Amino acid sequence: MNRHDPEGAIAESAKAYSNWGRWSADDVLGTLNFLDEAKRREGAALVRRGASFSLSQSFDMDGPQNGWRRRTNPVHTMLDTGTDAVLGHQGFPHGIGGADDVISMPLQCSTQWDGLGHIFDHGMAWNGRPAEHVVTSAGDLVTGVEHMAPYVAGRGVLLDVGRFAGGGTGELPDGFAITEEQLTATAQAQGVTVGRGDIVVVRTGQLTRVRRDGWGEYAGGPAPGLSFTTAGWLHRTEIAAIATDTWGFEVRPNEFEASFQPLHQVVIPNMGLLVGELWDPDALAEDCARDGVYEFWLTAAPLPITGAVGSPVNPIAVK
Amino acid sequence: MNRHDPEGAIAESAKAYSNWGRWSADDVLGTLNFLDEAKRREGAALVRRGASFSLSQSFDMDGPQNGWRRRTNPVHTMLDTGTDAVLGHQGFPHGIGGADDVISMPLQCSTQWDGLGHIFDHGMAWNGRPAEHVVTSAGDLVTGVEHMAPYVAGRGVLLDVGRFAGGGTGELPDGFAITEEQLTATAQAQGVTVGRGDIVVVRTGQLTRVRRDGWGEYAGGPAPGLSFTTAGWLHRTEIAAIATDTWGFEVRPNEFEASFQPLHQVVIPNMGLLVGELWDPDALAEDCARDGVYEFWLTAAPLPITGAVGSPVNPIAVK
Amino acid sequence: MNRHDPEGAIAESAKAYSNWGRWSADDVLGTLNFLDEAKRREGAALVRRGASFSLSQSFDMDGPQNGWRRRTNPVHTMLDTGTDAVLGHQGFPHGIGGADDVISMPLQCSTQWDGLGHIFDHGMAWNGRPAEHVVTSAGDLVTGVEHMAPYVAGRGVLLDVGRFAGGGTGELPDGFAITEEQLTATAQAQGVTVGRGDIVVVRTGQLTRVRRDGWGEYAGGPAPGLSFTTAGWLHRTEIAAIATDTWGFEVRPNEFEASFQPLHQVVIPNMGLLVGELWDPDALAEDCARDGVYEFWLTAAPLPITGAVGSPVNPIAVK
Amino acid sequence: MNRHDPEGAIAESAKAYSNWGRWSADDVLGTLNFLDEAKRREGAALVRRGASFSLSQSFDMDGPQNGWRRRTNPVHTMLDTGTDAVLGHQGFPHGIGGADDVISMPLQCSTQWDGLGHIFDHGMAWNGRPAEHVVTSAGDLVTGVEHMAPYVAGRGVLLDVGRFAGGGTGELPDGFAITEEQLTATAQAQGVTVGRGDIVVVRTGQLTRVRRDGWGEYAGGPAPGLSFTTAGWLHRTEIAAIATDTWGFEVRPNEFEASFQPLHQVVIPNMGLLVGELWDPDALAEDCARDGVYEFWLTAAPLPITGAVGSPVNPIAVK
Repeated sequence: MNRHDPEGAIAESAKAYSNWGRWSADDVLGTLNFLDEAKRREGAALVRRGASFSLSQSFDMDGPQNGWRRRTNPVHTMLDTGTDAVLGHQGFPHGIGGADDVISMPLQCSTQWDGLGHIFDHGMAWNGRPAEHVVTSAGDLVTGVEHMAPYVAGRGVLLDVGRFAGGGTGELPDGFAITEEQLTATAQAQGVTVGRGDIVVVRTGQLTRVRRDGWGEYAGGPAPGLSFTTAGWLHRTEIAAIATDTWGFEVRPNEFEASFQPLHQVVIPNMGLLVGELWDPDALAEDCARDGVYEFWLTAAPLPITGAVGSPVNPIAVK
Repeated sequence: MNRHDPEGAIAESAKAYSNWGRWSADDVLGTLNFLDEAKRREGAALVRRGASFSLSQSFDMDGPQNGWRRRTNPVHTMLDTGTDAVLGHQGFPHGIGGADDVISMPLQCSTQWDGLGHIFDHGMAWNGRPAEHVVTSAGDLVTGVEHMAPYVAGRGVLLDVGRFAGGGTGELPDGFAITEEQLTATAQAQGVTVGRGDIVVVRTGQLTRVRRDGWGEYAGGPAPGLSFTTAGWLHRTEIAAIATDTWGFEVRPNEFEASFQPLHQVVIPNMGLLVGELWDPDALAEDCARDGVYEFWLTAAPLPITGAVGSPVNPIAVK
Repeated sequence: MNRHDPEGAIAESAKAYSNWGRWSADDVLGTLNFLDEAKRREGAALVRRGASFSLSQSFDMDGPQNGWRRRTNPVHTMLDTGTDAVLGHQGFPHGIGGADDVISMPLQCSTQWDGLGHIFDHGMAWNGRPAEHVVTSAGDLVTGVEHMAPYVAGRGVLLDVGRFAGGGTGELPDGFAITEEQLTATAQAQGVTVGRGDIVVVRTGQLTRVRRDGWGEYAGGPAPGLSFTTAGWLHRTEIAAIATDTWGFEVRPNEFEASFQPLHQVVIPNMGLLVGELWDPDALAEDCARDGVYEFWLTAAPLPITGAVGSPVNPIAVK
Repeated sequence: MNRHDPEGAIAESAKAYSNWGRWSADDVLGTLNFLDEAKRREGAALVRRGASFSLSQSFDMDGPQNGWRRRTNPVHTMLDTGTDAVLGHQGFPHGIGGADDVISMPLQCSTQWDGLGHIFDHGMAWNGRPAEHVVTSAGDLVTGVEHMAPYVAGRGVLLDVGRFAGGGTGELPDGFAITEEQLTATAQAQGVTVGRGDIVVVRTGQLTRVRRDGWGEYAGGPAPGLSFTTAGWLHRTEIAAIATDTWGFEVRPNEFEASFQPLHQVVIPNMGLLVGELWDPDALAEDCARDGVYEFWLTAAPLPITGAVGSPVNPIAVK
């Protein structure tokens, strides 16, 4: 890997790990195609205790966003309240009162899926489509996140790399590039396998750290994350999706000079991989450490917002 | 039931079917307490084929909202697009481009859960709390929908009353008040039981009709729905939640003169029932009619929007 | 004018009435350049009584927008209220309480100016710039409405064509194409001249009608308005700006077959004319009819929203 | 003034300087009543050169807001762009293309007027009305800023206290409490008088400083501003309105212990004074320093947002 040539390295990886045309010319699901009914049966069999966990951060103004590229925290306002109801302002009969609310937010402000239209490689979107025909001001006309609505439910696997490689702290330092070897060694140490159709959740421990120390530069700054070199593993394992507890999934600063999210450029438009960010695996990870079981049933259904290139999500793991 | 005395009937039902104090003084979950780990094990065992279904309507400007109480359809706009990327406006290195987006929407604009702070009875919110201490302009300070984030996953049951009682059309007419008898007869005809901790989805067929004929007054106008008299059944069965394919869950026009959503007034603040509206059970219902199996695993996780009195949701059923 | 050839007619007018390069290669003001200090002195001298009039429609959910091209009415919500203050929810000392609010709205939802980046002609924006370099997802990078912030104050002239040509009703019917002859005859009948640097307000009476009869198709439907043939007059008079009491300034249905706002296509990108829409001249018009004075001091300052292609405005006329 | 007793001092000032009932029981304009037609004639006579100045800061994401009480900077997004138009995505005939946009913003995010419903004193709003009957979740039902729409145009006076008392720097330090003596001495030094119906703009120079040094705590932090003791002057002069180049009009930290905006509590609900904040008087101030003329015609028309407790504004001064 030549640190001085991100463009060359990206081109090589993009070619080696492309899934363009793998499913069909009009595919809108990418690697989510790997998550089939057999995989769902396998996942559902993992529900042994019936304990459920949310892997979502909260959605409110105390979030990490700092305005970069106009990504802000959500603004939640009330249309009607209990104070109004009690003071008789609502005009309803027989003592009924109500509260209603509104939200305004970037779709990637908190726990989220990147849609397939979120990233382009040299003007090309997933499956080899010209980006300008896919995502206009009217949204993603082809691969909008609504197409994934029914499918993101299957076997989940937690790889707690923070715990495995964090030197006892449970947390990887910022700038830590997670390699394929560390992913597979973590899986082995946890006694779990990763394979075709799985939804993999990687815990780095950064969220644990910023929850303790303050957001700081969590949104866009230095972070542990997947090395650019894991592209082959992401391709070879044929996983359906991957998510992390960080802002940007891959290690930051990025491993190339003067680069920006090179692994995204390979895995989203070329591989068609479903990528999740800003997840909160901590409660689940504690439970997994306790019982030694790192696989579970996972539902992480995006909201079917027509034409969206991302979606907020509350992923639910059940063990 | 005295059609001229909604206030008396509501008071009677509220008292008879109250769950205040049933779990604890600081309860924030209501009937979701019925959905325990045993129920989740039971639900997961229903995944036999691995087929998954979204029960969500889409989120876009072609929705049913008409501005009543400032409920509008979602407005989705782009922060970055493929056209910008292709035309070189993004300033990123090595050929990466991106798209980002924003949404502004009422939390109850499309498929949704009502939070426990959504409805009050004579100034009292769920569990006997004064509404003015629960929901202020800052949101629901006590029973915000975020408290339910990990829990809404379990056994789902579809009651296709539209199919059972629709006289062959699959659709109940507007104003049709579904009674307890019809609910139990539908269940019996379908060969399914409803019990403690279940998430019940009632299909009336109204959505099928408006999808064919246009939204019309779907938001707030006449609709089939549960009769006020089902409050006892909703309480006795100890279900965790109920959802319909209509705007307002209960029959409209309401069964009392000069009334507004009287069943809501009983079941949300008094019973603590989790109520879903604007769901789309049609694809699932077709499958159930085909294979005769009306029970399934259901995950319908609200977004943990801090202090929200409702949440958009993409419910996923797996059979 | 060949009704079957809008493209030819537009091309001809665009060429005849182009102001490209008239001021400078980097001009961002268009015809607002005509409104100079002398014109402001002339305008200020028109303040004789000191009576002031707002020419703005209100900004609220009872507005005319119907969702076309995602233009909605404004949604105004409260962040803090008097009910919260009185009930002690705000946590402020010594009895102070407060209310705050938020708005979400299209910039052209109610009384507004079109920015110079609002309309393009065959991919070209004002002054001959390629539209794709002017208006991206980041907004209007060149001719954003903020550039006009200090300048829109000068001599205003009301042409009450509704009164003059409305056959005694004060209202032109929908589809009525106002010609140059009618504009000049109206001015003459009113005893007023129109010239270089003026801000002209044309009253058609349509707003009066929809205020009485309901919005109907006011937003985008049939309306009285300027004929395509007035382009020459708009150019020759060297007015700084023009505004109407209609949604779209020009007559609708448009005068060509299968066309859409052809006069816009000539006057905004080619002539650089500042165009206002959805104005409410009725109170002012009544006063003018009373005292026979149709000229006044007019301030109609757009909000300096960086990169906006339009702006809400509350125009103030003082006589 | 007892620094330890804000509540007592506020009560005393509120009583001494109350205008409740001064105009009528149903007044919705407060001190704007002082701005009459004669004053407008006087103001218009000040237009000598015809030079116009915007006193507005920009409206964009680079603003000062930091999320306090959910006040954010505006989020401006595009519904249509030039890139889409050029790439043929808009579906319009004969080569016309267009751009449209949307904004989401607190009404007090940038240059603004405080409405009369913005502040309460012990639960009472302007003119002695119970706050809970005035401002609910539906907005200000009585004194919404729309009532002021036609009237805010008259004689403006700049008091450049930053220049006069800034020790040669043109800037008052943060925490500097401007007294009545300094206001009158500034006016005297400038050769200008302040009186009934005037709109007074006070320049402290803080905006000049933060423009140079970065926003820092401009929104809500330490700032120069009017001393609590100026309440009498504000009342006695019978000015119509006052505005500053700071976030909060009055000096911060406030002059009492454990207090919050005590002067607001006196002047808005009790005196009915129209208060402007976040104005940008710098370009105008430079011109005034140059020609020695500190009075001008000023139009600062709030947008008639129905029920709003504040409004963005682009104030235009003409000399």
